[in-house]
Amino acid sequence: MHQLADRNTPFIANEWYVVAFAREVGRSLLKRTVLGRHIVLFRTAAGAAVALEDRCPHRSYPLSAGKLDGDDIVCGYHGLRFDASGDCIEVPSQPVCPKGVGVRAYPLIERGPFIWGWFGDRALADPAAVPSTPWLEGDRWTSSQDYFHLPGNYVSLHENLLDLTHLSYVHAESFGTPDYARAPYEVQAKEGHYRITRSVIPTRLPPVWAQPSNLLHDHAARIATSEFLSPGLHVVSATFYDNDLPPGTRPEFRIRTCHVPTPETHGSTHYFIVHSRDFALEDASVTAFMREQLMLAFAEDVAALSRLEQVLAGGAEEHYEISFASDAAAVAMRRHLKERALAETGAAADVRADS
Amino acid sequence: MHQLADRNTPFIANEWYVVAFAREVGRSLLKRTVLGRHIVLFRTAAGAAVALEDRCPHRSYPLSAGKLDGDDIVCGYHGLRFDASGDCIEVPSQPVCPKGVGVRAYPLIERGPFIWGWFGDRALADPAAVPSTPWLEGDRWTSSQDYFHLPGNYVSLHENLLDLTHLSYVHAESFGTPDYARAPYEVQAKEGHYRITRSVIPTRLPPVWAQPSNLLHDHAARIATSEFLSPGLHVVSATFYDNDLPPGTRPEFRIRTCHVPTPETHGSTHYFIVHSRDFALEDASVTAFMREQLMLAFAEDVAALSRLEQVLAGGAEEHYEISFASDAAAVAMRRHLKERALAETGAAADVRADS
Amino acid sequence: MHQLADRNTPFIANEWYVVAFAREVGRSLLKRTVLGRHIVLFRTAAGAAVALEDRCPHRSYPLSAGKLDGDDIVCGYHGLRFDASGDCIEVPSQPVCPKGVGVRAYPLIERGPFIWGWFGDRALADPAAVPSTPWLEGDRWTSSQDYFHLPGNYVSLHENLLDLTHLSYVHAESFGTPDYARAPYEVQAKEGHYRITRSVIPTRLPPVWAQPSNLLHDHAARIATSEFLSPGLHVVSATFYDNDLPPGTRPEFRIRTCHVPTPETHGSTHYFIVHSRDFALEDASVTAFMREQLMLAFAEDVAALSRLEQVLAGGAEEHYEISFASDAAAVAMRRHLKERALAETGAAADVRADS
Repeated sequence: MHQLADRNTPFIANEWYVVAFAREVGRSLLKRTVLGRHIVLFRTAAGAAVALEDRCPHRSYPLSAGKLDGDDIVCGYHGLRFDASGDCIEVPSQPVCPKGVGVRAYPLIERGPFIWGWFGDRALADPAAVPSTPWLEGDRWTSSQDYFHLPGNYVSLHENLLDLTHLSYVHAESFGTPDYARAPYEVQAKEGHYRITRSVIPTRLPPVWAQPSNLLHDHAARIATSEFLSPGLHVVSATFYDNDLPPGTRPEFRIRTCHVPTPETHGSTHYFIVHSRDFALEDASVTAFMREQLMLAFAEDVAALSRLEQVLAGGAEEHYEISFASDAAAVAMRRHLKERALAETGAAADVRADS
Repeated sequence: MHQLADRNTPFIANEWYVVAFAREVGRSLLKRTVLGRHIVLFRTAAGAAVALEDRCPHRSYPLSAGKLDGDDIVCGYHGLRFDASGDCIEVPSQPVCPKGVGVRAYPLIERGPFIWGWFGDRALADPAAVPSTPWLEGDRWTSSQDYFHLPGNYVSLHENLLDLTHLSYVHAESFGTPDYARAPYEVQAKEGHYRITRSVIPTRLPPVWAQPSNLLHDHAARIATSEFLSPGLHVVSATFYDNDLPPGTRPEFRIRTCHVPTPETHGSTHYFIVHSRDFALEDASVTAFMREQLMLAFAEDVAALSRLEQVLAGGAEEHYEISFASDAAAVAMRRHLKERALAETGAAADVRADS
Repeated sequence: MHQLADRNTPFIANEWYVVAFAREVGRSLLKRTVLGRHIVLFRTAAGAAVALEDRCPHRSYPLSAGKLDGDDIVCGYHGLRFDASGDCIEVPSQPVCPKGVGVRAYPLIERGPFIWGWFGDRALADPAAVPSTPWLEGDRWTSSQDYFHLPGNYVSLHENLLDLTHLSYVHAESFGTPDYARAPYEVQAKEGHYRITRSVIPTRLPPVWAQPSNLLHDHAARIATSEFLSPGLHVVSATFYDNDLPPGTRPEFRIRTCHVPTPETHGSTHYFIVHSRDFALEDASVTAFMREQLMLAFAEDVAALSRLEQVLAGGAEEHYEISFASDAAAVAMRRHLKERALAETGAAADVRADS
């Protein structure tokens, strides 16, 4: 068995994962699968987001196929009524509702653009453990939101983000440049937190950065940091400036992108993206231009990870992979995920999921 | 393991099941799957319906891809000829046909609109055990036939029919009314025969019944009985009348619907429907109106049971369901199916069919 | 377990199989699956055909999704460079490329229209074992090439070819004639080489042969031989002449067809066809006419074998088949395939492949 997490590694349940953008959840029932669990999401009349198990305890009908009535869900099969805590409060065929019947409610925390959910041991659901993204809450950054349904495992997405040498190849036609793969890098790893910084200096920026920053020459600096903050959050930060100007006097342009890989099944991932910048804050045309350019690039990742998933899922047997020095952060991250998964399951069992 | 039959319970072979409407079977080869068995159906020149195993014993080619020649099937691969009893009577590549070669022929009984077949132990195939539907054979009732290919297990369909509280929810837009789920009911159960009667008095009938009976007011009576008669037949009877008129003087309107769930695979069911009424016998416009209305409603069941199947088939593990008093008939029925299945297989093995 | 190979029998790896027509492989990357293995094919600048394992040893990305650069493949994910022998010769993120990293290269031999590949023990890859097809290399025969992606197992295709009684049934509408199934035949079997010859004399030829040979009457001779030469090659030869003319004086017309069944998965086969004739060598209209007629007939085989595969793959349990005298060659061939498969795997394990 591999020491490193891969698509067959059990999910890590005791962790916060983004279940939806805040704007997605409202006064209708939203069906979603997260970590292989089927849930139904909605907001109460007072605005609180709710996540319940999407399976009636009576005859297993999906509650998401029922109706939201006030703050209750009424099952679409035999009319059992559940309140926002998941308790069954009415069985229409009888005058008295039995106690102790209900569905599981999952703890949620709404913060900025995200609704975070917890699917593990409820006693461990510490709100303080929700990864911090303070720049998404003030007004010093401007953000845009996007989503991909990624037909691949979330571990592959994290690893993709921690080895940016791929920019020169996967993104050769979009925001990669040939010098990226050979640029010097620095790795920082501490338990549960993995970071790689790559400095491409001097360089010619691709249009997505060159145009809004007006750094159109070949002596720009491009310094990018990928950070694995939790199984549910990866942040890529980048700084651009004119390398011929001295520090302090030169304008610097910063972007910060939340790459949010929420496992759906072992073979698919909800890939939420929030892209933020600290310049041209009010310029909607810059937002539109960058968003268009970035989504082209991220679609290249989705295509590549989809191809990779076909190889990984189709493998009849275990297949060892070779790693290089630049993989140090990714390898440490995957070892960490594997150890956490095994610690939770208390066993060494990998799954061979066909979904 | 559950005490109650569910989608993973082995099929009950020693039972009569409808394999086709009589009108479907003629002088061409009809391929069908019943209880997971592949069969080919046709009629002899004299009009007798025949069901044979759909697999040539030579090289496994489906006989249904061959040709009907007189009362014989000629295999479409190497020309082996089978008579209506399943015996191989000619091997073209040699002058003499070996004895004892053939395919299994399944006992069939044609009665009214149905052709019933037996797929279990041939010694137990008692024609007297074909469920009785005498109203389909005289001229006191008018009937129409319909069919759904249901992407769900047959047990779920039986259970759906035995808990009509679902009318208020699944059929809220068609023939359900809000008072249905709370109406008093009476359960009768004896081994192999389960019945629930629900009296909704007074009520306002939905258009499908109100219009042809002219009971357009809010003081109608609606008394419905669901009866599980065998694993292959469920009959729902209903009586409607003006509750303000005394018994004896008032006109009463009766409908009787055969719901025929023939398992195809563990995840799919042939759902034959024969709807009969004892009024407006000659009025084709009533037939057309009721049929259109009812098919809308039964399509709602098919959609609901399809959703349910996705939950049940996707369940990685056993999932216990809670039952209420109104489930008494359904629970007894499912226990009965489970016991019969286990008695036949002589083992406790459930299947996890992926089809 | 069956004594005869069937769709669940492991592939025989120590054998030459056609991986592509020579014309298919050029200066771009061609992705293909053979014996369940994923490979990438290309030609070097000097024209040598190359087959490499289609999986980067670093992070499992398919090399076929990369780029051909000179005689090297550059991986499309992180830019590792592999030469035509499969050795990794560059890792962009570091100055030195580690030794001993690479992908498997498969021995290839190009001969006439075919590129043959070897996927078993490299030490056993004897070029002399490539089946001989000398008529494809001189100028005494004219040939045409075709291909079907067959949704069925390769064993079924070999067996189809060794029992030509099927011509009267599968090909009743194309090049079969009713007398074919009952014609006398002769079987020759020696280990690894199985042959059946069928003489249909006198007969009326179907248009595909009658028209180009001008043997339009009912006293033609049609002598056909099917030969299993290896798991990867089957040749069907036929001779036609006017049976009323004495030997020596009469013109004889010969065709020879390579039927090349290369296993893709257990449920699919690359079916390469090269059809040759020794008459009307320069007449392109004869080539076009025969090719059109034959492809209609071979498409009937593909349809029949596809139906058969559905039966075989859907079988929940082992199913014994009865064989007749005319199956002697096919049965010996299947026993041979089974023995070789078991000898390679050193075990009796059949597979139940779902692909």
